[in-house]
Amino acid sequence: MESLSSNKSFGGVQQQCEHQSKVLHCAMRFSVFLPPQATDDNPVPVLYWLSGLTCSDENFVQKAGAQRMAAELGIAIVTPDTSPRGVDVNGDTIADDEAYDLGQGAGFYLNATQAPWDKHYQMYDYIAYELPALIEANFPVSDKRSISGHSMGGHGALTIGLRNAPRFKSISAFSPIVSPLNCPWGHKALAAYLGDDQALWVKYDAVELMKKIKGDTAHLPPIKVSQGLADNFLEQQLKPHLLENAANQVNYPFEIKVHSGYDHSYFFISSFIDEHLIFHAQHLLK
Amino acid sequence: MESLSSNKSFGGVQQQCEHQSKVLHCAMRFSVFLPPQATDDNPVPVLYWLSGLTCSDENFVQKAGAQRMAAELGIAIVTPDTSPRGVDVNGDTIADDEAYDLGQGAGFYLNATQAPWDKHYQMYDYIAYELPALIEANFPVSDKRSISGHSMGGHGALTIGLRNAPRFKSISAFSPIVSPLNCPWGHKALAAYLGDDQALWVKYDAVELMKKIKGDTAHLPPIKVSQGLADNFLEQQLKPHLLENAANQVNYPFEIKVHSGYDHSYFFISSFIDEHLIFHAQHLLK
Repeated sequence: MESLSSNKSFGGVQQQCEHQSKVLHCAMRFSVFLPPQATDDNPVPVLYWLSGLTCSDENFVQKAGAQRMAAELGIAIVTPDTSPRGVDVNGDTIADDEAYDLGQGAGFYLNATQAPWDKHYQMYDYIAYELPALIEANFPVSDKRSISGHSMGGHGALTIGLRNAPRFKSISAFSPIVSPLNCPWGHKALAAYLGDDQALWVKYDAVELMKKIKGDTAHLPPIKVSQGLADNFLEQQLKPHLLENAANQVNYPFEIKVHSGYDHSYFFISSFIDEHLIFHAQHLLK
Repeated sequence: MESLSSNKSFGGVQQQCEHQSKVLHCAMRFSVFLPPQATDDNPVPVLYWLSGLTCSDENFVQKAGAQRMAAELGIAIVTPDTSPRGVDVNGDTIADDEAYDLGQGAGFYLNATQAPWDKHYQMYDYIAYELPALIEANFPVSDKRSISGHSMGGHGALTIGLRNAPRFKSISAFSPIVSPLNCPWGHKALAAYLGDDQALWVKYDAVELMKKIKGDTAHLPPIKVSQGLADNFLEQQLKPHLLENAANQVNYPFEIKVHSGYDHSYFFISSFIDEHLIFHAQHLLK
């Protein structure tokens, strides 16, 4: 693992690193914010932040303004990239697509099964397992984890969080794609990455995962969703009511807050990121 | 004046606009954050933020995280571009230089007298007069103004603020170039824009302006400077002690805070922008 940059921020340190991913078979960059409380003697919990379409690991770092509250609460934040990029370990160019919503910058946090994507696009395994193991081996952090994200990254946070409940203490999302089965972004990406059999898509669909939950839900990681009502993608792509309805059906610990006038941008995220950090802190620090 | 974008942020609105500048003879972009308190019946004061080399109006908007505290305090923030750009009113390409520290993105907040710069590079008049008049005619703001900036923009804030004391209530700067007469960035830019006669440079040199102040200084706009001690440009380009010494000599209301470990980046600005906003609010809101 190589450190690419390190900047003091709110008494902590914002770093960007690169490492060779075994599951993605290529070099990957990620950013990590360590709050001032993080020391070898005092490992801190980690929030994983998954960004949306077109983003790298840097968008959240630069635009969300999360470091202030993370430093106050004593929480590390890890922001991975949104897909494999560049060239792989053999020097071959990683598959891409000219569109913004497929290929590089659009990994959809799943394990692809279809060529040409299956060789590298294994972002589900990377986020759920490889990256946390790397982070916990190399930084002064504990194994207490929460997960959050925006749009495609909200989809990633919800699906990875729901499928790995003991590994993540709490889940949140801004403006998430809650059901790839029910939106154009999802249909395009999942058809390409997983093939046309929609029965294989359900494990990457937060609404379908929610519908399958049975029994006592009190021990499961609570979910918090924030949604702007001036979001251009709300009706066609995001449809958070589908997840709200499914959560209510199974009595899942779920809250959604809607915000008049806010759009799909990082200006929405920065306005409410403190609320999400405090929500996760309640579950990470207890 | 044309609105290019508008995003709700912390209950207020972050806008980007374009207008035809009369003093620069070209189209100029600027960004403005209006806090939720700003209405026609309740005009709010304005902080002008001047960015550093290579920046546009967008860097501060996206990276500083200033909107939260500005919304809390009820202060508007206007962020102009750092130079003329593109083409002028005749369709001629605005003069530029391949280097990052001269030409587009590097206007140095002065009125150029030398060709080819003199035709458009009149940023001093633009920031001190034309832009405030435009802002006050078109937004729900008062004529109470303060000024701040970073690096080259810190130089701009100090020199424009010191030369227009009644027009600006308070002045602050992060990591400012305090004396173009005493650094390589200053020598290169001022020689190109103003010619080789250094006697003509002194009105754009905060240290020289400070040295000329006489008599009672209690009514003059107080200055706050923040400087990171891990700033790569500190010793060769910035030299804030020159301004501190000059301010002490004339008993100017001046404070400087230095911060161990912080560098020249926006991570430093975001860590301490709240302090600067509170400083300006003390003078804008009284």
